[in-house]
Amino acid sequence: MPKRLYGGIEAGGTKFVCIVASGPDHIVDEIRYSTTSPEETLSRAVQFFEPFVTSGQIHAIGVGSFGPVDLNPKSSTYGFITATPKPGWSHTDVLGTLRKALPVNIAFDMDVNVAALGEYLWGASQGSDPSLYLTIGTGIGGGYLFNGVPLVGMLNLEMGHVRIPHNLELDPFPGNCPFHGDCFEGLANGPAIEKRFGVAGAAIPEDDPFWDIEAEYISSALTNFILTLSPKKIVVGGGVMQREFLFPKIHRKVHELLNGYVSSKSLLEEIEEYIVPPGLGNQSGSLGAIALAMQVDDLNDDLRL
Amino acid sequence: MPKRLYGGIEAGGTKFVCIVASGPDHIVDEIRYSTTSPEETLSRAVQFFEPFVTSGQIHAIGVGSFGPVDLNPKSSTYGFITATPKPGWSHTDVLGTLRKALPVNIAFDMDVNVAALGEYLWGASQGSDPSLYLTIGTGIGGGYLFNGVPLVGMLNLEMGHVRIPHNLELDPFPGNCPFHGDCFEGLANGPAIEKRFGVAGAAIPEDDPFWDIEAEYISSALTNFILTLSPKKIVVGGGVMQREFLFPKIHRKVHELLNGYVSSKSLLEEIEEYIVPPGLGNQSGSLGAIALAMQVDDLNDDLRL
Repeated sequence: MPKRLYGGIEAGGTKFVCIVASGPDHIVDEIRYSTTSPEETLSRAVQFFEPFVTSGQIHAIGVGSFGPVDLNPKSSTYGFITATPKPGWSHTDVLGTLRKALPVNIAFDMDVNVAALGEYLWGASQGSDPSLYLTIGTGIGGGYLFNGVPLVGMLNLEMGHVRIPHNLELDPFPGNCPFHGDCFEGLANGPAIEKRFGVAGAAIPEDDPFWDIEAEYISSALTNFILTLSPKKIVVGGGVMQREFLFPKIHRKVHELLNGYVSSKSLLEEIEEYIVPPGLGNQSGSLGAIALAMQVDDLNDDLRL
Repeated sequence: MPKRLYGGIEAGGTKFVCIVASGPDHIVDEIRYSTTSPEETLSRAVQFFEPFVTSGQIHAIGVGSFGPVDLNPKSSTYGFITATPKPGWSHTDVLGTLRKALPVNIAFDMDVNVAALGEYLWGASQGSDPSLYLTIGTGIGGGYLFNGVPLVGMLNLEMGHVRIPHNLELDPFPGNCPFHGDCFEGLANGPAIEKRFGVAGAAIPEDDPFWDIEAEYISSALTNFILTLSPKKIVVGGGVMQREFLFPKIHRKVHELLNGYVSSKSLLEEIEEYIVPPGLGNQSGSLGAIALAMQVDDLNDDLRL
């Protein structure tokens, strides 16, 4: 029996990725394009999926969206991007626009939760429960899965905005978070690196001492997440982490910061296997959206029984 | 029908509290005594409960223990206090010792998880899911309940040891954590206060500017927990928090640190109702142990069905 096909949308603030797939080994179609106005960006997605929906080839669509997003199903703005610094996108009804145009089940969640799902189902955190997916790029955010489900409490998690020790002596940069100045995101995201150097992080050589400071900030945050959430696997993606030499620096520094306090083999001896890059490369988000679509489809199967 | 009675042990590093109760409104017997050697301390608990067990009056006993503890039921040292700085207590088989002497169901968890349970069932976090209980005393630790169950991941949570910004300008104290120096616990626990002043925190006047620094550290940690765990209620107990004037300072500072980033009515308008002292006063731990005993008793009822 052929596997069911689903639609997945990685709705990023910089680019959109839309795929039709049954999983990582079977991606039938894919488009990637820059995020422009909400109207233009969302209608390109609609056009891409329309033939697959009309012909009944896809059973559900999953959307992992940049944020902040409203994830409360009881709210009148459920499925909206709320107040975002991204020009033109504040108060955009992403889910409603897609549902109106595409008559198929559509599930919606925030980008990091969806990427966490993809990594948990097919990527680097398979079999690890609880697990944490962190992205360090234009923004910093995390999705934490417990029993395979994204943790939502009073609000969505916003772990990019935690306060960490700021190494003022070696790094007087005040931070670029408009809300908090030198929170984790304000110190360590891509734009903060670019602001310090006048060039993008990708152009800064590997031997620049700044990378030790960047690794220190990431490690402080990861250490806190380990002590607070105790995930069994931490997957770290995003543009900044394309510089793979950061991983060994982070492994050493997290080890140093924990200083033997938590005695776990994973942490003490196998930290290279504990804090890892995404198993799905740059497809965590789009394949995670497929995983989300599969969940809503399963749920509907259950309801039909 | 009279309510069932249970035994509860708050096994603290400074004192033990043993109670027989059906809940906060019906505490039948209670003893409190200083923690000395493991043998002496545990046998006093055994002597207290023995008549209630022999006569069949109590159906189960719950234990909330200081730590670190081994909570993995598959481990050969399950129910042990593991490597603790408390003299004489390292590698103590707390659960095994009690089970050998008292033929009744006995449930075991770490002190903060148990106090969190007590507050969730009968105290300040009733109806709030997820919820966080934090103690700031000789040590600092937290218990996080999700769906009413303490979160355990790869390891027990150790949120007292997170790194937070250290206000070196106003507070050059290097911290007293033997593992991490100036982690949250190293900066803000009771002994760290005493080390700075040469007298206990209880003797430091309310108008001493240090209390603003103490509130700053607590607020940084709480802000991070809000962003990472998103509890619907935060209960803060422990000896340091006996100084109730700390609460309004913490409310103001958490508000300032979040700076409107997370838009929730609880945080923006009702923060006095969001970060609160224990509803059970100094009985969160002992009554939490009763709640734990009730759970194991219910579980056995379920298994008999």
